[in-house]
Amino acid sequence: MSVLDAAAHRSLVEALEQDDLGALVVLAPSSADPDLAPFVGDARLGESCLLAHRDGRAVLGCFTPMERDEAGKTGLEIAAPAEGGANAPSTFGERAAGLILRLLEEHGGPVGRPLALAGRAPVDDVLGVTRALEAREYEIEGGSALCRRWRRTKSEWQLDDVRAAAAGVCAAMFRVAALLRRATTNRNGLLCIDGRTLRIEDLQREVGEEFGRRGLEQPEGQIISSGRTAAVPHSRGTADSELRAGESIIVDLYPRSHLFADCTRTFVVGEAGEALRRVAELVRRALTESEEKLRPGVLARTLQEEACQMFEGAGFATLRSAPGTTRGYVHGLGHGVGFELHELPSFRAAGEDGTLRVGDVVTVEPGLYDPEAGYGVRLEDLLWLGPNGVENLTRLPYEPDPGEWEASE
Amino acid sequence: MSVLDAAAHRSLVEALEQDDLGALVVLAPSSADPDLAPFVGDARLGESCLLAHRDGRAVLGCFTPMERDEAGKTGLEIAAPAEGGANAPSTFGERAAGLILRLLEEHGGPVGRPLALAGRAPVDDVLGVTRALEAREYEIEGGSALCRRWRRTKSEWQLDDVRAAAAGVCAAMFRVAALLRRATTNRNGLLCIDGRTLRIEDLQREVGEEFGRRGLEQPEGQIISSGRTAAVPHSRGTADSELRAGESIIVDLYPRSHLFADCTRTFVVGEAGEALRRVAELVRRALTESEEKLRPGVLARTLQEEACQMFEGAGFATLRSAPGTTRGYVHGLGHGVGFELHELPSFRAAGEDGTLRVGDVVTVEPGLYDPEAGYGVRLEDLLWLGPNGVENLTRLPYEPDPGEWEASE
Repeated sequence: MSVLDAAAHRSLVEALEQDDLGALVVLAPSSADPDLAPFVGDARLGESCLLAHRDGRAVLGCFTPMERDEAGKTGLEIAAPAEGGANAPSTFGERAAGLILRLLEEHGGPVGRPLALAGRAPVDDVLGVTRALEAREYEIEGGSALCRRWRRTKSEWQLDDVRAAAAGVCAAMFRVAALLRRATTNRNGLLCIDGRTLRIEDLQREVGEEFGRRGLEQPEGQIISSGRTAAVPHSRGTADSELRAGESIIVDLYPRSHLFADCTRTFVVGEAGEALRRVAELVRRALTESEEKLRPGVLARTLQEEACQMFEGAGFATLRSAPGTTRGYVHGLGHGVGFELHELPSFRAAGEDGTLRVGDVVTVEPGLYDPEAGYGVRLEDLLWLGPNGVENLTRLPYEPDPGEWEASE
Repeated sequence: MSVLDAAAHRSLVEALEQDDLGALVVLAPSSADPDLAPFVGDARLGESCLLAHRDGRAVLGCFTPMERDEAGKTGLEIAAPAEGGANAPSTFGERAAGLILRLLEEHGGPVGRPLALAGRAPVDDVLGVTRALEAREYEIEGGSALCRRWRRTKSEWQLDDVRAAAAGVCAAMFRVAALLRRATTNRNGLLCIDGRTLRIEDLQREVGEEFGRRGLEQPEGQIISSGRTAAVPHSRGTADSELRAGESIIVDLYPRSHLFADCTRTFVVGEAGEALRRVAELVRRALTESEEKLRPGVLARTLQEEACQMFEGAGFATLRSAPGTTRGYVHGLGHGVGFELHELPSFRAAGEDGTLRVGDVVTVEPGLYDPEAGYGVRLEDLLWLGPNGVENLTRLPYEPDPGEWEASE
């Protein structure tokens, strides 16, 4: 049983043929490397390399006998570097270069075609392997773009893994909503629970505990921010900020199992002002309209354009009407999600990289911000373009009022 | 106020001079990149590059206006790529190469000296930058080893960060001990709490919740394993394994704040067999003896040798007496810890890389394993070689019996 299913295997061979490459070489510091991860699934490995020949043969290089069992789980052919004596190469790059050269030569080599090199190894190892292979007359090209294109379509286990991460996000959001629901407002307008003010860190703790118990990591962090901080989309939030009634609270979570999930909700406890209410409605409308248009064959950036048009029509600046604006609709509408948080498809590119297709997992995330008025609203769903239609992987309420979440629990 | 303190700054300049390099270029996919992290501290950045000249001037390349505020937190000089028209470079590598070339030329260039390139960017970007610089007659060398040597000595904020991660590990260990203490043994010898059997996942949840509430990540995972699984040091443990009285339970935690901490304890609930008791005592003795010898000027691998000698004297195989053995003492005695889990100093290298010195943070982790008998015991402390002596950053009980942990809580 191999981690690489038949379809993924075939599409890798096709990708190598399309770019007229002889083979793919992945040089990875660990099994979490996004270029290696699709080959190894659950196996936990340290420094590893992978050689995928154009004819479909794939070999995993395993550098320590302690990891042979883990490597075996992948279902790939396993190879180890020769046992060295006193003059054995000592760095990962030297050992990997030796192993790759041996495997290439045993296999007859990728005659006349370049090798694509990918992975996230330290530069010393990347340059070391590149130069060792070039010294033996192999031509080396970067393989990162090929890997990114290839791993765009999710296999069954990969989609299951995204679902697990998305389920964790949903559970964490419900915990945040439940905590906010318990809050009362003191005479200064601050939210309180059990006689003390509620802070961003209290929400962070709910999320961290839920992810922790599910074994979800947050290698890219999280955003839980409120008020003026929420008005700047990239601010992560300040742990000791006190939460205030009537203010927008953005919760943007993007944990990883093997693959990532990504989802945002905006809460308001108590009465929102008129401007905030209107913005929340517009963002919700943008989300609904964008998701309705989401289907294979659509160029993702047209959805971005249409969202801009809608927001501009409602009197808001966008990056299209006012490049560099920090007020209005100030970021992209979505991105692909996979072994990295931002993957293909792109909501900016033209051509194939930007055209939605079956197998894509994407976010849709309109938002409106006003640093002066001190609010930000963003809603983000994670969606899978399945063979039978689009599936929302983060089915959660959209209401800012956490009270309205109770019925959905 | 700069993240880079005066001593770190000076030692970087010295490292460049020592290797006769013109400058260091770091190409990083994010601020979590171990080669970039020492420069940027708390700032959360996406794709970034850094140019540190031999004369001490350091410039951070910031690729999106949205991150200018975060970049500003670093205290570094900030530069942005030129705004592009229709023909603007599109990939990170192209934009970084353009910016670095401009900065080098503005500064007069590193006349006659190679540039060191570091970071963990995708290969396409690494090769793209390398080739763009080589095309302009700059000589490029790998800079990973230089970065690793340079970041070995921990600055004050870095040590505080390790302490925060280590405090999280200690809290999580106490939670595991408290849970194990509550367990009773059923007639099949399985541990039970509240009428159901205790599983590895129950321990994982305690740890995950504690790290989650403290904002600690586990990008490298964790090891919680028992019995035969614990007998293989690299096995991560199986979530649904039931725990058994008298069996060894290894808990090896290595979370990250900005830097990592790393610590292991081995628990036994109920009566341990005679072999396991003896092994636990020997491992504790090896830990104590090794830590007593830990001090600046000592070649770390001599501690490894002496631990082997002690275990061999007690009748156990070691990697020295029986290379490749899976029974006995089967791994290294320790490693440096920092922005990566495994850093300098090395417990294998000769010379400077292997000689302990003030500012090092290292683990000491002897262990004994027997896959046939079905046990594994490992104890691991994290220690800082401070200017006034060695400080144990993970002061926890060593007793396998969780009952003996209560008094220390």
